[in-house]
Amino acid sequence: MMHNENRDQRLMKLTTPLSRVDIALAERSYPILIGSGLLASTDAFADLPATTTAVIVSNTTVAPIYAQQLRATLSGQFRVVHLVTLPDGEEFKTWQTLNLIFDALLQNGCDRKTVLFALGGGVVGDMTGFAAASYMRGVPFVQIPTTLLAQVDSSVGGKTGINHPLGKNMIGAFYQPLKVVCDLDTLMTLPQREISAGLAEVIKYGPIADLALFSWLESNMDALLARDPAAMAHAVKRCCEIKARVVAQDEREAGLRAILNFGHTFGHAIEAGLGYGQWLHGEAVGCGMVMAALLSERLGLVDAVLVARLRALIQKAGLPVTGPRLAQTDNAGRYLELMRVDKKAEAGEIKFVVIDGPARASVRGAPDALVREVIDLCCRSA
Amino acid sequence: MMHNENRDQRLMKLTTPLSRVDIALAERSYPILIGSGLLASTDAFADLPATTTAVIVSNTTVAPIYAQQLRATLSGQFRVVHLVTLPDGEEFKTWQTLNLIFDALLQNGCDRKTVLFALGGGVVGDMTGFAAASYMRGVPFVQIPTTLLAQVDSSVGGKTGINHPLGKNMIGAFYQPLKVVCDLDTLMTLPQREISAGLAEVIKYGPIADLALFSWLESNMDALLARDPAAMAHAVKRCCEIKARVVAQDEREAGLRAILNFGHTFGHAIEAGLGYGQWLHGEAVGCGMVMAALLSERLGLVDAVLVARLRALIQKAGLPVTGPRLAQTDNAGRYLELMRVDKKAEAGEIKFVVIDGPARASVRGAPDALVREVIDLCCRSA
Repeated sequence: MMHNENRDQRLMKLTTPLSRVDIALAERSYPILIGSGLLASTDAFADLPATTTAVIVSNTTVAPIYAQQLRATLSGQFRVVHLVTLPDGEEFKTWQTLNLIFDALLQNGCDRKTVLFALGGGVVGDMTGFAAASYMRGVPFVQIPTTLLAQVDSSVGGKTGINHPLGKNMIGAFYQPLKVVCDLDTLMTLPQREISAGLAEVIKYGPIADLALFSWLESNMDALLARDPAAMAHAVKRCCEIKARVVAQDEREAGLRAILNFGHTFGHAIEAGLGYGQWLHGEAVGCGMVMAALLSERLGLVDAVLVARLRALIQKAGLPVTGPRLAQTDNAGRYLELMRVDKKAEAGEIKFVVIDGPARASVRGAPDALVREVIDLCCRSA
Repeated sequence: MMHNENRDQRLMKLTTPLSRVDIALAERSYPILIGSGLLASTDAFADLPATTTAVIVSNTTVAPIYAQQLRATLSGQFRVVHLVTLPDGEEFKTWQTLNLIFDALLQNGCDRKTVLFALGGGVVGDMTGFAAASYMRGVPFVQIPTTLLAQVDSSVGGKTGINHPLGKNMIGAFYQPLKVVCDLDTLMTLPQREISAGLAEVIKYGPIADLALFSWLESNMDALLARDPAAMAHAVKRCCEIKARVVAQDEREAGLRAILNFGHTFGHAIEAGLGYGQWLHGEAVGCGMVMAALLSERLGLVDAVLVARLRALIQKAGLPVTGPRLAQTDNAGRYLELMRVDKKAEAGEIKFVVIDGPARASVRGAPDALVREVIDLCCRSA
């Protein structure tokens, strides 16, 4: 029996090998584990601090599928495992929802050593991370991203926060998790729309950092859309590697890290303008990248071929490449108004992440007239 | 004229010399300036980062007296100086009030470089600090404490936060200011009740860290209650020095820093049990120190003479030494229940800061029966 089990295990490891990517941030360093079956693996959670209580934070969509399994895995290590279930959706990324976590922590007498586990997509991860950063001025937490978007982007790097009615992610903290556990199996239960949304953040890394990834995505988009395990594993790992490199150099976004916001300035305007939860974050970023690429071209930084390739890839991923109208009369003006509250803005000047060479990005301002032109070209006509 | 002005200035400096205490926290190090006339001194604010916008956060009591003066001082350096006025009182140290700061920052288009100035007591400082920690994941801020309590304690060391209905300071961040500016003149406009409340935190430093300060306070309490400038200057400076030493060794309260919470475990129970804003924080801490000292004695850690001296000093400062009843039937039980949500508690066990030698404190548990005995002895009878 023992022999057989060992052989089976070895076989599984051959088909979906466990990968590890490290985020190097001195005493805040941590690993990202990427693999299959990790939610059921006590090994994946073995090195956490010893304490009595764990709290899983999830949402109404993810909890029914995965919370019980995670609870079983953690219960060997923690005497008590609580579950907090939040409503699902970007429109719930608010103080009111965050307070549900604080209520549960206090009602259950959770102390400073309690470990929080964010089980879900980007919204659950951002809110659980901010709750962990703020509860008793900081308790440890673990990211367990269950969406493609969260696995390749939002769970890594310690950006946490909530939205304010006047702007996305305006209230939050830089607060690193103890580790990130990406169970690739969870991608199998995602709606196709969520796969596409996640692919937006995957595609993002190509033009700003890795032309080989860009080409690989052009060749493997069908496999990714079909959730081919090897393709998924490669994409998640490569994205985490790039993000790890950038975050290690600039944890608090004093400079370089801002390039990871490629497409996000326009994207945030779309999300806020339509109302949070109308378009998925990844959909808004997909469309926002088309706009940012066109702006880069109009600024004379990049040629039209790259812009066309990027647009085609975004479209192939099942993402929108035409922007929504956010106002009947002055649509571009409404975009500009919304973008002025972007976190990168300085003294009222909007800063855009632009492509300014092969696999190279930077942050700069642009004349309003040029931005208007780009928005008009990329949006549905009135 | 010039000569006369210079002579007057020199004279003022002789009577209330400018002191500086440094908080050594590597790249987060900062100075505390202590002196007279600092709100009007452009020098005191000269070394802040260059940017366009400053936001003064104050309250309805302090803003009418000092905001205009501070605004005038800052307006040489910042093109725009906004003022946000919060309601005054511990009962407003809530998310709802905090959100007034975020609303103002976003409505005024404040960016990541905007500098916040906390002009007020502990509540304004804690809330402004947490707003600064969280707005766009962190903007710089300056503490300008205008109460004795804030000057000797809460403005120094980077503890920020808000209350939750289930516990005091449960939501917050460790976030250091750029500097702390203690203008001793502001103490002259404080109600006497606030002077006494501040003296509780001054007295605190004696038994836990400095017997010389303890004796000095016994000799100089009348001068302090009369707001003698030299006595005040000495007390503020000495307390800041002790706090600086402790915070430099243990910024995030992994151990040592917890001793600064002497009297606070009992005190927080009083504040929460009566409803925030009924007793001032310092009043609750004063009474809480009597309880904590008696507990130390009952644990055999300290002799009755020190406890009696401390009780007499607290009483002389105009502070309550008898605890309020928080429940009709099981008063001690209600205290215990409220103390179990203290941030120092671990796995349900309340941790107390006790005196365990001359000018030495530590953190430890105590049998419930003993704690009940202490509470019964220190509280009004039913």
